[in-house]
Amino acid sequence: MEILKTLIKKSDTKIVLIVLDGVGDLPLKNGKTPLEYANTPNLNNLAKKSALGLHIPVDLGITPGSGPAHLGIFGYEPLKINIGRGVLEALGLGLELRETDVAVRGNFATIKYEKGIPIVIDRRAGRISTEENKRLIKYLSQNFSSIEDAQIILRSGMEHRFVVIFRFPYQISYEVETINDTDPQAVGKPPLKPYGKGKMAEKVAKIAEIFCEKVAELLKNESKANYALLRGFSVKPKLETFEEKFGLKACCIATYPMYKGLASLVGMKLIEFEGMNIKDEIETLKFQWNNFDFFFVHIKKTDSAGEDGNFEMKVKIIEEFDMLLPEILSLNPSVLCITGDHSTPCILKSHSWHPVPVLINSSYVLGNTSERFTEREALKGELGIFYAYKLMPLLLAHAQRLKKYGA
Amino acid sequence: MEILKTLIKKSDTKIVLIVLDGVGDLPLKNGKTPLEYANTPNLNNLAKKSALGLHIPVDLGITPGSGPAHLGIFGYEPLKINIGRGVLEALGLGLELRETDVAVRGNFATIKYEKGIPIVIDRRAGRISTEENKRLIKYLSQNFSSIEDAQIILRSGMEHRFVVIFRFPYQISYEVETINDTDPQAVGKPPLKPYGKGKMAEKVAKIAEIFCEKVAELLKNESKANYALLRGFSVKPKLETFEEKFGLKACCIATYPMYKGLASLVGMKLIEFEGMNIKDEIETLKFQWNNFDFFFVHIKKTDSAGEDGNFEMKVKIIEEFDMLLPEILSLNPSVLCITGDHSTPCILKSHSWHPVPVLINSSYVLGNTSERFTEREALKGELGIFYAYKLMPLLLAHAQRLKKYGA
Repeated sequence: MEILKTLIKKSDTKIVLIVLDGVGDLPLKNGKTPLEYANTPNLNNLAKKSALGLHIPVDLGITPGSGPAHLGIFGYEPLKINIGRGVLEALGLGLELRETDVAVRGNFATIKYEKGIPIVIDRRAGRISTEENKRLIKYLSQNFSSIEDAQIILRSGMEHRFVVIFRFPYQISYEVETINDTDPQAVGKPPLKPYGKGKMAEKVAKIAEIFCEKVAELLKNESKANYALLRGFSVKPKLETFEEKFGLKACCIATYPMYKGLASLVGMKLIEFEGMNIKDEIETLKFQWNNFDFFFVHIKKTDSAGEDGNFEMKVKIIEEFDMLLPEILSLNPSVLCITGDHSTPCILKSHSWHPVPVLINSSYVLGNTSERFTEREALKGELGIFYAYKLMPLLLAHAQRLKKYGA
Repeated sequence: MEILKTLIKKSDTKIVLIVLDGVGDLPLKNGKTPLEYANTPNLNNLAKKSALGLHIPVDLGITPGSGPAHLGIFGYEPLKINIGRGVLEALGLGLELRETDVAVRGNFATIKYEKGIPIVIDRRAGRISTEENKRLIKYLSQNFSSIEDAQIILRSGMEHRFVVIFRFPYQISYEVETINDTDPQAVGKPPLKPYGKGKMAEKVAKIAEIFCEKVAELLKNESKANYALLRGFSVKPKLETFEEKFGLKACCIATYPMYKGLASLVGMKLIEFEGMNIKDEIETLKFQWNNFDFFFVHIKKTDSAGEDGNFEMKVKIIEEFDMLLPEILSLNPSVLCITGDHSTPCILKSHSWHPVPVLINSSYVLGNTSERFTEREALKGELGIFYAYKLMPLLLAHAQRLKKYGA
């Protein structure tokens, strides 16, 4: 794909990428998927005059997490990029990451001492409540803020989960990703000591060890959460930005931290706005229209409905989006792409490997292949079934932002 | 695809892979292919509620032999794996290969001596009969059984073809595959001397040379088959097993030695059973149902009919399979896949490069895209056209045997 960079040309065309998270699905009601079942007059009209197809998020049969799935539609080969567990977790909690940070996922756990040796008896501290977690994180934050030259930043997640960032006054290298998890992955065993390969990793591992000791000391009177197990030591991946890779000034309009975080990894500008609804996002799109070339609009609730197995809710969100579609069309984008990052079939209540419908509307499509924006109608479309990371070149081409290759 | 191995999860789901050898075809009668012409009510029903598509055995335009074609549907990239000619030939004759073996394909040939130098005058010894071949191999086997530390194992093939295995008391390295063929590829020339690169290859080449001399001595009074030309020095390839690669306990239900041999290369358990018919194979499938996770059922006769250009016979075999399909369905496999290893169009009387229809039945498909399991209906399906070596990840996904990739 290095060739692509040599073909980028400047243009004043505008591209809108709408990601209906987890929109792809399987038949459930009357043999229909939510996209098929929903009443979508505006999407139907648009589909008839658009290019349709399906994208494979990562590879055939591979179910992606949100990280790889978004990197794919952003044009990055998801199998070639590793986003560490700690980094993803931090992004998901809305923490801004720097190149000087080590992000680590933590679990509160329960230990008891046998002859002075700590033994893990519950790796999740009885799944304490999120409120309990917040109380503990607040207490820990008040009682220590640094170890050696590392600033400690703590953030509560759900139940027993939290994130710790070790922020240093200098850039951190990938070698810290060699540090092992301290979670022994089984009860009845002592926590593992963190070790890293290389000088910087050794130093960070030592700090992490001290961190665990201090947490144990501070929480020694807690009945459940009296210890912390650490996993997924990782650094912010160094990715080419959207501007470097595609020559696009891009922004992200999203409501959930994870997606903002992923967009920020590729250098998109995060737009702050009030409200959590699709309507609010489209208002924001309108408001920012003159400021960017590329607009990533992330709609979360289709995925949440799929994860809950709530077919009716998924249909409702799709219909809500359909009603608002004319507002997007009124902006007259050069290229409008509507897709999902992956499928979240209601019958699976989880992400899946199934290809995801893609719609590209521009002046340069065949069109008239498909009656609707659905999984099965998309199969008839001119785009075929293609890898998600090829979507961006297609959008650039339809936006007349790519020069000819060769003479 | 190293990533796949990290995603394997255990499950008690069962996968059945039916390979109708060479099933793909081209239109011949009433513009129909054998799959289209055949009366297949059970396959039709199944197709309507299954995922369909076509696989490309090796690459666009590439006609595969049975070796690469099967490796592909077994999930191994056929262009990255070399199975030597000698090994394939040995597997085809039902010889069990060890890591201590060098397998070589032999041709009986006719030579005459000019000034004491042997000159090849017929590279195939007038295509002697298979019976004649068997008489010679029996005679040779009785008269020498070893050279230095190599045990000699001989097996007749068809007409002038045979296989010789040099079995050593130690492991043999790939370097023996550097040994050149002794066949000069033209009449009027002397046989070539075998040479190999590396110490072990040199030694094996020397033994092969002695072998040829001894054969010439023993057969000196034969009028036609008075010499042996050797080709395709090769060793059993070291492949990851199905269990290592996919976490599957797999078995092979096949009637022909070649396919059993290929299955054994990837570590499938070969099931012995009475009979050569599809019915016998399906009885065996039922009998073994509780013993394995993955069942490779190979049906040979579709290919044989294609090779013979016998359209009616191919239709008949497909209809025979269709009649027995309910027996397979009654086992209620989590995933049932029906496909071929390659196409064998009757009009070509040989393997071809054409993509092969694939049907995947499971609880997690869209379905309702295709009316039948045929080449043209498969084109409408949700699987699209994909490389054969991606089939296994798809089957694993549909069997819920893969974890999510990334968070």
